[in-house]
Amino acid sequence: MARRAAAGLLRRHLGPLAAGETLQARGMYPKQYGAANHAFSRFYSIQGQQRSLYGFRTNVETDDTQQSARMNFEVQKRSFSSAAAHVQRNPAYSVLNSDDVSYFKSILGDSGVVQDEDRVSVANMDWMGKYKGSSQLLLLPKSTAEVSKILSYCNSRRLAVVPQGGNTGLVGGSVPVYDEVNGILTCEAGCVLENLSSYVENKGFIMPLDLGAKGSCHIGGNISTNAGGLRFIRYGSLHGSVLGLEVVLADGTVLDMLTTLRKDNTGYDLKHLFIGSEGSLGIVTKIAILTPAKLPSTNVAFLSCNDYISCQKLLLAARRSLGEILSAFEFMDRHCINLAMKYLEGVHNPLPVSPYNFYVLIETTGSDESYDKAKLEAFLLRSMEDGLVADGVIAQDISQASNFWRIREGISEASVKVGAVYKYDLSIPVEKLYDIVEEMRSRVGDMGQVLGYGHLGDGNLHLNILSTKYSDKMLAQIEPFVYEWTSKQRGSISAEHGLGLMKADKIHYSKSSEAVQLMTSIKKLLDPNSILNPYKVLPQSVLLLRATEDKSVNTILERIRW
Amino acid sequence: MARRAAAGLLRRHLGPLAAGETLQARGMYPKQYGAANHAFSRFYSIQGQQRSLYGFRTNVETDDTQQSARMNFEVQKRSFSSAAAHVQRNPAYSVLNSDDVSYFKSILGDSGVVQDEDRVSVANMDWMGKYKGSSQLLLLPKSTAEVSKILSYCNSRRLAVVPQGGNTGLVGGSVPVYDEVNGILTCEAGCVLENLSSYVENKGFIMPLDLGAKGSCHIGGNISTNAGGLRFIRYGSLHGSVLGLEVVLADGTVLDMLTTLRKDNTGYDLKHLFIGSEGSLGIVTKIAILTPAKLPSTNVAFLSCNDYISCQKLLLAARRSLGEILSAFEFMDRHCINLAMKYLEGVHNPLPVSPYNFYVLIETTGSDESYDKAKLEAFLLRSMEDGLVADGVIAQDISQASNFWRIREGISEASVKVGAVYKYDLSIPVEKLYDIVEEMRSRVGDMGQVLGYGHLGDGNLHLNILSTKYSDKMLAQIEPFVYEWTSKQRGSISAEHGLGLMKADKIHYSKSSEAVQLMTSIKKLLDPNSILNPYKVLPQSVLLLRATEDKSVNTILERIRW
Ligand SMILES: Cc1cc2nc3c(=O)[nH]c(=O)nc-3n(C[C@H](O)[C@H](O)[C@H](O)COP(=O)(O)OP(=O)(O)OC[C@H]3O[C@@H](n4cnc5c(N)ncnc54)[C@H](O)[C@@H]3O)c2cc1C
Ligand SMILES: Cc1cc2nc3c(=O)[nH]c(=O)nc-3n(C[C@H](O)[C@H](O)[C@H](O)COP(=O)(O)OP(=O)(O)OC[C@H]3O[C@@H](n4cnc5c(N)ncnc54)[C@H](O)[C@@H]3O)c2cc1C
Repeated sequence: MARRAAAGLLRRHLGPLAAGETLQARGMYPKQYGAANHAFSRFYSIQGQQRSLYGFRTNVETDDTQQSARMNFEVQKRSFSSAAAHVQRNPAYSVLNSDDVSYFKSILGDSGVVQDEDRVSVANMDWMGKYKGSSQLLLLPKSTAEVSKILSYCNSRRLAVVPQGGNTGLVGGSVPVYDEVNGILTCEAGCVLENLSSYVENKGFIMPLDLGAKGSCHIGGNISTNAGGLRFIRYGSLHGSVLGLEVVLADGTVLDMLTTLRKDNTGYDLKHLFIGSEGSLGIVTKIAILTPAKLPSTNVAFLSCNDYISCQKLLLAARRSLGEILSAFEFMDRHCINLAMKYLEGVHNPLPVSPYNFYVLIETTGSDESYDKAKLEAFLLRSMEDGLVADGVIAQDISQASNFWRIREGISEASVKVGAVYKYDLSIPVEKLYDIVEEMRSRVGDMGQVLGYGHLGDGNLHLNILSTKYSDKMLAQIEPFVYEWTSKQRGSISAEHGLGLMKADKIHYSKSSEAVQLMTSIKKLLDPNSILNPYKVLPQSVLLLRATEDKSVNTILERIRW
Repeated sequence: MARRAAAGLLRRHLGPLAAGETLQARGMYPKQYGAANHAFSRFYSIQGQQRSLYGFRTNVETDDTQQSARMNFEVQKRSFSSAAAHVQRNPAYSVLNSDDVSYFKSILGDSGVVQDEDRVSVANMDWMGKYKGSSQLLLLPKSTAEVSKILSYCNSRRLAVVPQGGNTGLVGGSVPVYDEVNGILTCEAGCVLENLSSYVENKGFIMPLDLGAKGSCHIGGNISTNAGGLRFIRYGSLHGSVLGLEVVLADGTVLDMLTTLRKDNTGYDLKHLFIGSEGSLGIVTKIAILTPAKLPSTNVAFLSCNDYISCQKLLLAARRSLGEILSAFEFMDRHCINLAMKYLEGVHNPLPVSPYNFYVLIETTGSDESYDKAKLEAFLLRSMEDGLVADGVIAQDISQASNFWRIREGISEASVKVGAVYKYDLSIPVEKLYDIVEEMRSRVGDMGQVLGYGHLGDGNLHLNILSTKYSDKMLAQIEPFVYEWTSKQRGSISAEHGLGLMKADKIHYSKSSEAVQLMTSIKKLLDPNSILNPYKVLPQSVLLLRATEDKSVNTILERIRW
C-alpha cells in the first residue's frame, strides 16, 4: 500500500540544543552534562561484562518533580543494603566483540559509534549521578532505518539494548513538521521538549505537556514514560493527545503508526502499547501529537484551608465554577510551607498572618485576561463565604505568581536540605489521599517529619518523609506499609514515573496477577529475546522463564495455539 | 494481593430502560425493539448451522450518524452481488448441542438462556433490520462471574460468541457508582449511555461522549467501538477519558484493570487494547470513566463561507479565539443545505438571502451565558471583517438552536429520501478533506449527487453519494477509488464506526501490513481459538491460518520463543 506523509507541511530544522542555559520559571532543571550535535534517538547497548548496578550519592538539589523512579529507588537502595536488589547479568546475552563494533561502524559511520570511555561513562550515568550502568558502547543513530538495522542485528546477536532519551542532556536537533490547520506536530523522538514548546508557541500553540525536565528530556522519552507533568489536569494523558507513533520493534521491524488523524477506528490501536512502556517493547522514532491553542491569560491564586475536607470541596467547586479555565490545582500541607519558608531563599509566605493547616495553589488559563480574573475573584469570594477558604490572594503580577509557584515547586529542594528524604509518588482517590500522610505521621512519630503535597486535581500525592539521616528502622516503618496501603485503596505506587529497574518487582501492588501475566505475554510476543531495556518494568521472576524450560514453552504455546 | 473497590461511594440502581420513548434534541433514535428487565451485557453464541449473512432493506429514516460500519456495508453488499462477501462458516467451531444448553442453564438459570425463536431472531438482527445472523441461543449473563464461566466453557468447547451491547435496545438496568469529588463514574458495561448521562447530569457532570444512538447503545458497546460522537472535539477520544476496565478474556480469565486513578504508570496500559477492538479481544464488563463538569451556557451560530479555504481558516481562528469554550465545528456544503431544505419538514434556512458554497455550525459551551455570547459575537464580527465569513446568525433561543442542529443532523435522513445512498465515514487531514468530494463529483458526473459534510473540527468527513437507484456502474466509479484516495492521504477509511464484518478485509487501506500482522498476533495471543466475534475486524486471510498448518505454528512459535 502506498503510504506517504501528507504533503504541503512546513519543514524546519530546530538545530542543536542550547544546553546548560535552560532555567525555566517553573521546574528548573539545574544540571546538564553538555551538548553534542548528534541528532535523534540515542541509545547504547549493554555488553557482556555487565556489573551489578550501583550508585553513589550526590546532594544535587532538585525540585519536587525530580523524584523519578530512578531517584526514588536510589534513595532507598543505595542507603539500605537490606533493600538493595543487585541485578545479576543474564548469561543469555552475548558479549560484545570487535565484529559487532565494526558492523555498527559500517552502518552509523565512525562518529555514530562511541567507545571513548569518558563519553560512554557519561551515558552510563543517570542524570542525578546516582546510578551507573556498564555498557561499553554508545550508538547514535540518525534515522529510523539506522535504528532498525541496529535492532535487527542486536536481536539476532542477542545483544541487550537500553534506549535512552534526554537522560543526560546529550541531545541534538531533529525535524519537526507542523500542521497549523489541524494543530498537529509531527517530529522525531530525539526532539527536546522545550525546543518543541518554543517551536509550536511561535505558531500560537502549546505542547499538551510541560515538566521541570523540559530543557533536557526528549519527546521520545516523554512518550515512553507516559509523562504527566503540569498540564495534565487541563489536557489529560498522552494516551489522549498522541495521535501517531513510528516504532522500531526488537527485531528491526518498523511499525508505521504515524497517523495525524484525530479519529481512526480501523483495527486495534497499537500505539498505546508503546506509550508508557519505558522502552521495553520498542524504540519510538517518530511522534504525531495534538497541540492545543495557546491562551493568553494566566492567573494564579494562593489560598489556605483549615482542613483537608475543605480542600476536597474546594476542588469540586473549582471544577464546577472555573470549569474550562482551570489549569492547576496543587495542594501543600502546613509542614511544606514551614519547610519552604525555612530553606528557600527569596521566597515569602503570601498568607503570613496566621498559620493554616493546608494551602492550595489554583491556576487558570483562558483567552480573556480581565474576564478570567473577575471569574477567579468571584470564585474566591464565594469560597470564603462558604467557609471553604480561610484566606487567599491572587497574584497581581508575574513576580507574585512566580513566588507562589516557587513555594509549591521548591518543596522538594527544601526537603533535601534536611538530610535524608524518603520520597513516594502515589495516585490515590482524592478523598483518601491525605489519610496516608496522617497514618505515616503516626507511624514515624518523632523519628521524622512527614510532608504531603502534590497535584490534588489529578489525585497525585507526593509523600516525603524527612529525617536527619537514613536508617533501617525508619525504612521499616515506611515500607512495605506505604505500598500495601496504596494497594488497598487501589491506588498506584507510581503515578507518573514508571517502574524502571527498581519498582519492576513491585508491580503487583498496583496490577493484578492476570494483568502482569498478560503484560509478560505481550513483552515476549514483541521482544522474544528480551534485548530491549533488560531487567526493567516487569518482574525478573516472570521474565526469566526461558524456552529451555519445557513447561514454559508449553504454556506459551498453549496460549497462542489456535 | 488484596484488591477491593474504594469504599464510601454512592451506589444506586438505574432500573430498567424506558424504551421507545427516548427522543433527543440531537440525533433522534427512531426505533427500539422493546425492553426487558434483563440486566447487563447481553451476548449470544453462534452455533453450528450458521448460514451466510444476508440482509433485506428497510427504509428506516436515519440521522447522519447512523452510517455505522454495518450500514455502510449493508448498502453496498446487499445491493451489489459483485461486492458481496458471504461469510462461510468455519468448520473449526463446534455445533451447539443440548448439553451446552443445559450447562448454560445451570449457571444462568432458565431465564438467562433464551431459545425462544422470536427473541433470538430479534437478537440476530442488526438494528437497521438489514443483517441477520444465525445464532440459536441468546445468553443474558448478569455478572462478571457468569460472563467468565460462559467464556471459559465456550472456549473449551470451541463455541463462537458474539458480544452484543445495545444493538437492538433489549437492555436493562445496571449499577453505576459515582465519585463526585474525583468526577469519576464506575458502572457495568450494560448501562445505556443515556441513562448514565441523566445520572451524572443530576450530579452536575456530563458524560464525555454523546451520540445519536444514546437511548439504546451500551457504554460497553461504546468502549468496544471507541465511539466518537458530538463531544469529541471538546473532550477527545475514549482513550483519554476511560480510566479503567474490567474485561473477561476468551478463556474466562477476568482481567481487573478497573482503576479509578487519573495517573498510573505501573507497567503497560492494557486497557487500551480493548477500547475499539469491537469485542474481538475480550468482553468488557465494567468501566471507570472521567466525567467533565456540566457547564450551563451553550451558544450556536450558523455561518456561511464562500470557499473551502475560508472554512479551514475559520476553524483555525475559532480554535484560537473561542479556545476553551469551542464545543462543535461542523460543516456542510451547499448541496447538503439544498437537500435538507427540500426534504426535511419544519426546517428553514437561517441564511436564506443568497446561496453560499459552504455552511458552518459553531457551538460554544462554557460557564457564563452573557460572556460566552459576547465572545462568540465578537468572533463572528471579526471573521466577517476578515472576509472568512460571508454571512452568519447566532441562535437567540433553543428553538433556533435546534433548527440549526436539525439541518446538520438531518442530512442523512434527507439523503435517504432521494433513493440510493453510498455512505463513507472518512478521516482526512482538514486541508485535503474537501478534495475527495470534488474528485468524486467529477467521477460521478450526472449519474449522481455528491454531498460533503461532517465534523470538520475532528477532520471527519461524511461523504454521501446519492442516486435514484443502486448500480454496479456507479459503485465502480466510487470503489475502490474512495479507499485508495483516502489511503494515499494517510486517512482513515473508518473514522468512527470500526471495521466490523465487512471492512475487515479493507484494513490495509488504513494500516500497514506490519501493524495488521501485530494485531493478528495479539488476537491469537488473547483469543487463540478465535471464539470471540468471529469473521470481524481482521482479515480472514490472516486469521484463518490454523495450527494444523505447520508453517504457521512455527512462525508463531518463532515469534514468542525467548
Ligand atoms: C527536573 C525533573 C522534573 C521532572 N518532572 C516530571 C513531571 O512533572 N512529570 C513526569 O511525569 N515526569 C517528570 N520527570 C521525569 C522525567 O523527566 C520524565 O519521565 C521524562 O519523560 C523522561 O524523558 P527522557 O527523554 O529524559 O527519558 P530517559 O530518562 O532517557 O528515558 C526514560 C525511559 O524511556 C525510555 N526511552 C527513552 N527514549 C526512548 C525512545 N525513543 N524509545 C523508547 N524508549 C525510550 C528509556 O529506556 C527509559 O526507560 C522529571 C524529571 C526531572 C529530572
Ligand atoms: C442513530 C445512531 C447514531 C450513531 N452515532 C454515532 C456517532 O455519532 N459516533 C459514533 O462513533 N458512532 C455512532 N453510531 C454507531 C454506534 O452507536 C456506536 O458504535 C455505539 O458505540 C455502539 O454501541 P452498542 O452498545 O449499540 O454496540 P453493538 O452495536 O451492540 O456492538 C458494537 C460492537 O461492539 C461489540 N460489543 C458490544 N458490547 C460489548 C462488550 N460489552 N464487550 C465487548 N464487545 C462488545 C460488539 O461485538 C460489536 O462488535 C451511531 C449509531 C446509530 C444507530
